[in-house]
Amino acid sequence: MQSLIAFASDFGLEDTWVGVCHAIILRACPMAQVVDLGHQIPPFDIRKAAAMAASGVYQLPDAIHLIVVDPGVGGGRRDLCIITKQGTRLVGPDNGVLLPAAWRAGGVAEAFALDAVKVDHRGPLPTFHARDVLAPAAAALACGVEPSSLGTPVDADDLVPAPFGRYVVDGVYVRGEVLEADRFGSLRFNIPVEDIDGLGLRVPTLEVGLGHNNLTVPFLRTFSDVMEGDPVALVDSSGWLTLSVNMGNAMDRYGVQPGTHVNVRALT
Amino acid sequence: MQSLIAFASDFGLEDTWVGVCHAIILRACPMAQVVDLGHQIPPFDIRKAAAMAASGVYQLPDAIHLIVVDPGVGGGRRDLCIITKQGTRLVGPDNGVLLPAAWRAGGVAEAFALDAVKVDHRGPLPTFHARDVLAPAAAALACGVEPSSLGTPVDADDLVPAPFGRYVVDGVYVRGEVLEADRFGSLRFNIPVEDIDGLGLRVPTLEVGLGHNNLTVPFLRTFSDVMEGDPVALVDSSGWLTLSVNMGNAMDRYGVQPGTHVNVRALT
Amino acid sequence: MQSLIAFASDFGLEDTWVGVCHAIILRACPMAQVVDLGHQIPPFDIRKAAAMAASGVYQLPDAIHLIVVDPGVGGGRRDLCIITKQGTRLVGPDNGVLLPAAWRAGGVAEAFALDAVKVDHRGPLPTFHARDVLAPAAAALACGVEPSSLGTPVDADDLVPAPFGRYVVDGVYVRGEVLEADRFGSLRFNIPVEDIDGLGLRVPTLEVGLGHNNLTVPFLRTFSDVMEGDPVALVDSSGWLTLSVNMGNAMDRYGVQPGTHVNVRALT
Repeated sequence: MQSLIAFASDFGLEDTWVGVCHAIILRACPMAQVVDLGHQIPPFDIRKAAAMAASGVYQLPDAIHLIVVDPGVGGGRRDLCIITKQGTRLVGPDNGVLLPAAWRAGGVAEAFALDAVKVDHRGPLPTFHARDVLAPAAAALACGVEPSSLGTPVDADDLVPAPFGRYVVDGVYVRGEVLEADRFGSLRFNIPVEDIDGLGLRVPTLEVGLGHNNLTVPFLRTFSDVMEGDPVALVDSSGWLTLSVNMGNAMDRYGVQPGTHVNVRALT
Repeated sequence: MQSLIAFASDFGLEDTWVGVCHAIILRACPMAQVVDLGHQIPPFDIRKAAAMAASGVYQLPDAIHLIVVDPGVGGGRRDLCIITKQGTRLVGPDNGVLLPAAWRAGGVAEAFALDAVKVDHRGPLPTFHARDVLAPAAAALACGVEPSSLGTPVDADDLVPAPFGRYVVDGVYVRGEVLEADRFGSLRFNIPVEDIDGLGLRVPTLEVGLGHNNLTVPFLRTFSDVMEGDPVALVDSSGWLTLSVNMGNAMDRYGVQPGTHVNVRALT
Repeated sequence: MQSLIAFASDFGLEDTWVGVCHAIILRACPMAQVVDLGHQIPPFDIRKAAAMAASGVYQLPDAIHLIVVDPGVGGGRRDLCIITKQGTRLVGPDNGVLLPAAWRAGGVAEAFALDAVKVDHRGPLPTFHARDVLAPAAAALACGVEPSSLGTPVDADDLVPAPFGRYVVDGVYVRGEVLEADRFGSLRFNIPVEDIDGLGLRVPTLEVGLGHNNLTVPFLRTFSDVMEGDPVALVDSSGWLTLSVNMGNAMDRYGVQPGTHVNVRALT
């Protein structure tokens, strides 16, 4: 897995961009293996991209994560390589998209501003940093190049902030937000599984305040543990505390959007 | 091809699921090669998934076929490995999705209920059997593990039935149904090419009863063998008897849906 | 890169076609690596496919390019292998789709009509040339087979013309057309970067006549070099002269479609 690259972007699948980045990586590092985490991130949707990257890092902490989403790619902002405290390697623009992924792997240990000249000597076109800087940087990491040889160290405090915050503990409440809805309409909260025990939320029943809704829901292992049409709290495959409706769509049911505030507390 | 895995699911391409399954397979069996048969199956559409799996097995009988579609994945239903009489290996949930694929490869020879502990010792999360049980099982097969070591034998008669039936012969008629429409609106019937000669349908002209339509159509090699806008019967690339309209859309033309009854007989 | 195949089609991702072609290539030439340039080309849209192929060849001139789009695949038209003057290898139907790609790699050096029997001895089904002729031909090239052994030489003048023309120089004007819009609504013109210096267009300001619009725009390196909402001319990642709007959609702004005439001249 040391040479596996998990690639996500807002490129869509209608243009040549994804395939060209694959080809550039395979040319630069033939031993690399590239898997596509997703390229349907809406253009400029840093929130969605950051959530996807964090989900990917939770599931594949030993892969190199290449995350490309405007704004920040090809404009004035920097391109980054971040090494987390658990050793996960992240490559992407300095627009906040990498930080939630870093949170899920122990936080930022080191960050480097990529130097286009060090990464790729072929003279990149300015409009496609993904192909000419970011993908070659991920390929270089896959083939064992040290991050420090790809750019200049950057202070973690100088990075552009993440597009969403971390949950906060407020008395008996854990206050967070809806990160995103998945394909089935299940609502992922910014409360990661690795924190659930510490927050005292590993209980049979949770109270979930969600926009104008105040729900009492069982906290179970899978959505099919409740009756069809009933809500359930669970830890989803990406490792987020999630509100689902069995055979239904929680986002539609509760009329909420990504960013909606969430208040969770243990009931029993 | 012994280590090739053909992967289909209802995951869509907006989330991390497909890529994570690829990564899990590559980590478990680096020699495996994974091709994506399709991940746009609508959620819970077992009919569509079963048709896709059967089309895939016809075209790639020596691959391992990994088919993931709810319901049945992660709920109370079993996960299966089926070995067909022609040796094709199928992995997926026990919700009927694998059976039409098995029909096209000689029928079920052996079936095993996958044991999560035998397949993957890392303690699967309950919500993602695809990643934690099914993908590792396919990877194990690709690397030569015997199916019998992945689970417990199951009687083929105890499996959940397929989401559609097989055609029946009724006098001069072959009575079946519309399996699905392809991207171009061509209608695939549940009459496989391997049976067409035996059914006496290899003739220049067929009568096709299709919902409220009764058509007399030539049975030719390709849709471009008829005038633009004309209907034609042919064997499509997936090996099903198919009704097409040259440069047109048969599904729209005849106003039918998957599941519509079809009666076919040889005219001349 | 000699064994890299860049694959584009109008197959979409809902059916088994793309994955089966991957599998056929990997079986025929295990050392081949396949990247997907894009499979969302609308059915029968030869213009879009030709633009994508040309963009792909500009970016990956040393790959084998496999381009599949109806009409022409599986009908009466020929399947081709074209070798360009710069050595790029193209495989696809004789419907004009390969020619703009050939232009960007020096023009057609040799063309061969593929012989199904020479390419694949398994007896192809007539409805899926992509799987039975085109993909195996690309695989054969990836494994070092000479193009001349896959078919019969064809005169370049006998090929079906491209779906769009080349720009023409008319006094101070370069007259071309809009090839396509990208995902972000940026408009690509049929004026390739390799010709921009020779045409005298490498200047700070261009006049761009576009449908009913007559624009004076700066010619810069990237869309973020102008204010949000402002238009800019640039060379996009595919190497076409392109009109973009920073954080906006040029196609919507100017109300134009692929095929719209474009007149460009250097102002300063």
